[in-house]
Amino acid sequence: MAVGFEGLQQLSPVRGFRIGVASAGIKKPGRRDVVVMELAPGATCAGVFTRNAFCAAPVTVAKQHLAAVTPRYFLVNTGNANAGTGKQGLVDAQQSCAELAQRTGCDAAEVLSFSTGVIGEPLPLAKITQALPQALAGLGENNWEDAAHGIMTTDTVPKGCSRRIAIGNSEVTITGIAKGSGMIRPDMATMLAYIATDAQVGQQALQQALDSAVRQSFNRITVDGDTSTNDACMLVATGASGASLAVGSEDFQLFCHALTEICETLAQAIVRDGEGATKLITIDVINGKNVGECEQVAFTIAHSPLVKTAFFASDPNWGRILAAVGRAGVPALDLDAITIHLGDVCIVREGGRAADYTEERGAAVMADAEIAIRVDLARGNETARVWTCDFSYDYVRINAEYRS
Amino acid sequence: MAVGFEGLQQLSPVRGFRIGVASAGIKKPGRRDVVVMELAPGATCAGVFTRNAFCAAPVTVAKQHLAAVTPRYFLVNTGNANAGTGKQGLVDAQQSCAELAQRTGCDAAEVLSFSTGVIGEPLPLAKITQALPQALAGLGENNWEDAAHGIMTTDTVPKGCSRRIAIGNSEVTITGIAKGSGMIRPDMATMLAYIATDAQVGQQALQQALDSAVRQSFNRITVDGDTSTNDACMLVATGASGASLAVGSEDFQLFCHALTEICETLAQAIVRDGEGATKLITIDVINGKNVGECEQVAFTIAHSPLVKTAFFASDPNWGRILAAVGRAGVPALDLDAITIHLGDVCIVREGGRAADYTEERGAAVMADAEIAIRVDLARGNETARVWTCDFSYDYVRINAEYRS
Repeated sequence: MAVGFEGLQQLSPVRGFRIGVASAGIKKPGRRDVVVMELAPGATCAGVFTRNAFCAAPVTVAKQHLAAVTPRYFLVNTGNANAGTGKQGLVDAQQSCAELAQRTGCDAAEVLSFSTGVIGEPLPLAKITQALPQALAGLGENNWEDAAHGIMTTDTVPKGCSRRIAIGNSEVTITGIAKGSGMIRPDMATMLAYIATDAQVGQQALQQALDSAVRQSFNRITVDGDTSTNDACMLVATGASGASLAVGSEDFQLFCHALTEICETLAQAIVRDGEGATKLITIDVINGKNVGECEQVAFTIAHSPLVKTAFFASDPNWGRILAAVGRAGVPALDLDAITIHLGDVCIVREGGRAADYTEERGAAVMADAEIAIRVDLARGNETARVWTCDFSYDYVRINAEYRS
Repeated sequence: MAVGFEGLQQLSPVRGFRIGVASAGIKKPGRRDVVVMELAPGATCAGVFTRNAFCAAPVTVAKQHLAAVTPRYFLVNTGNANAGTGKQGLVDAQQSCAELAQRTGCDAAEVLSFSTGVIGEPLPLAKITQALPQALAGLGENNWEDAAHGIMTTDTVPKGCSRRIAIGNSEVTITGIAKGSGMIRPDMATMLAYIATDAQVGQQALQQALDSAVRQSFNRITVDGDTSTNDACMLVATGASGASLAVGSEDFQLFCHALTEICETLAQAIVRDGEGATKLITIDVINGKNVGECEQVAFTIAHSPLVKTAFFASDPNWGRILAAVGRAGVPALDLDAITIHLGDVCIVREGGRAADYTEERGAAVMADAEIAIRVDLARGNETARVWTCDFSYDYVRINAEYRS
């Protein structure tokens, strides 16, 4: 079970954005594994995709389609990633778009398809096609929770989040869902996420808002350091609320802030549900010379199998954290100036264990399921925050058993 | 048990290099945990040390001493790393050198001390000091095997290797031992290794030979990506064989070749004994534009928890290998030109699963304990080879239980 999960919150419908879910039996019979999302005419759309050079066929196709025209439909399947499938994979991804386009009367380029699941198997196109009528028949604005389930793979819980903000006399809704649990490492977006708002936002402004939000959320998480071939994060603005947001306006700032909060919540939800995770670890690196070196230190800690197994064991093994800081590759670190806190407890000062540190105080912090590490580099004013989880037997079990 | 371990081979004594081993009871009563090594007068010495910024106190002291004077003694203890111990750690490291110097009539700067074990605990100096008479009383040239045991921590097997080469009318011996199992990631030397030869080699030539050998061996292995705070690799040339090796000579090349073989064998032995390892994985990346990009791809595969858990499961999950190649950050990869082999079986060709690949063929390769991956980037003539191991339940068990 995901760390600190208390059930999926109520997800608010977004006017102009309809969702339909179906069971295509791709991997398990009866499981919801195909999701169709419909964008109202006039909606704008922004996207962020994996930077893995071996990106999946649907990612290649989606980027082409998105560059050409504003989409009307998203088609998501789980159980098969359509990655590592060569030329046939591209043909299949195109064909899946064409099949949905034919049934909805739009152009194939107005469909973006997304796949997640096992790499290297041919896409079961016929199964997906056969499930389309069911998904289309069920299209509605209240199906976010269903969709959050419908995009899950090794996720143990659905992930979603809603915010409402007042813009002038209007109320604007933003709702997002995400999936992801393993093969999670930030390098652009990670995993799949779909966020929609009924605000009216121009395409460039929307892309700018998404880039900024992703940089502070999905690009700041890691479960296992493995960037997926299929990551995508989509943001849709239907404009149905009538509230128009111009770049630079205070309202746009409000919107960006709420969007970033949603992305942070979804990104955190992925780490909380990281494969085998029993702990959520928030790593703040502060007072660095630049954001880059803060990120470098934070990710080196976050990727360290030794740190992660120590957290799994609830062992306040500060030596492993210190060793990770030391190997992060930051030049000319003043080791004696660095302090490291575990929660409120100072564990490292002047190059060694803090004089007032006791194992009991460290162990008390470690007993929590949500733990903060703070590394003070004491050489500047920049900061970076990264979220990760621990490394448990179950990570090995899941990945030794699951063919992803 | 280490992958493919068939017992420690006979280790040849090196004239002019004596070893004494003792039990100081640092962590477990009765365990050999203190090793003294004595260099004959006139010997030369080269060393390579960790680049972890938080390097351990003895590493700092050893680098200072080595820069000042040729050492007469090495003092190694296990069970305590004297890392993350601040100023007191430096005092303790200096003092341990002084204690041995006093008992042997040399200068404290002529002693290098090495510590490995738990980080952040004060060095138990009194225990070590009390064990020195036992170690000194036992000094002899035939104690390599004892020393190989005496430097072990989480290692399950001792690691050592000898070579004899003919130089003119003389026979030159090279013998080396190493320890290491976790916190293994190349960034200079990794772990502890001690190699001695009775050839006569000038200090600069010796350092050059060691740098080159380490680059192709210890710097090409990874167990968990965590660079230790205490890594050191020392090479001693006693000159006792009378065979003198001048830089650039054919004999020197012969020597360098044999030294590199020894380092490779020791480096491989560390991976074979990687924490929880059940498989040895050799990764060759060939036909890259430069060695750097070949290493980048090889290490990205070698560090991937998803690849490593798949190997643990004997699952020919080529999709994870392909995803790792894709995220390695090599610019402008021609995905369609890349081929990937698992053993002799081609698994990826033209951006997807090779047409003639079958799960049965992949599974047959995976059944072995020693497996080769070959990635052909098809864009140049450079290569790099990296060794790693799989990622098992036991890695988590060892690191969740052991306070390192």
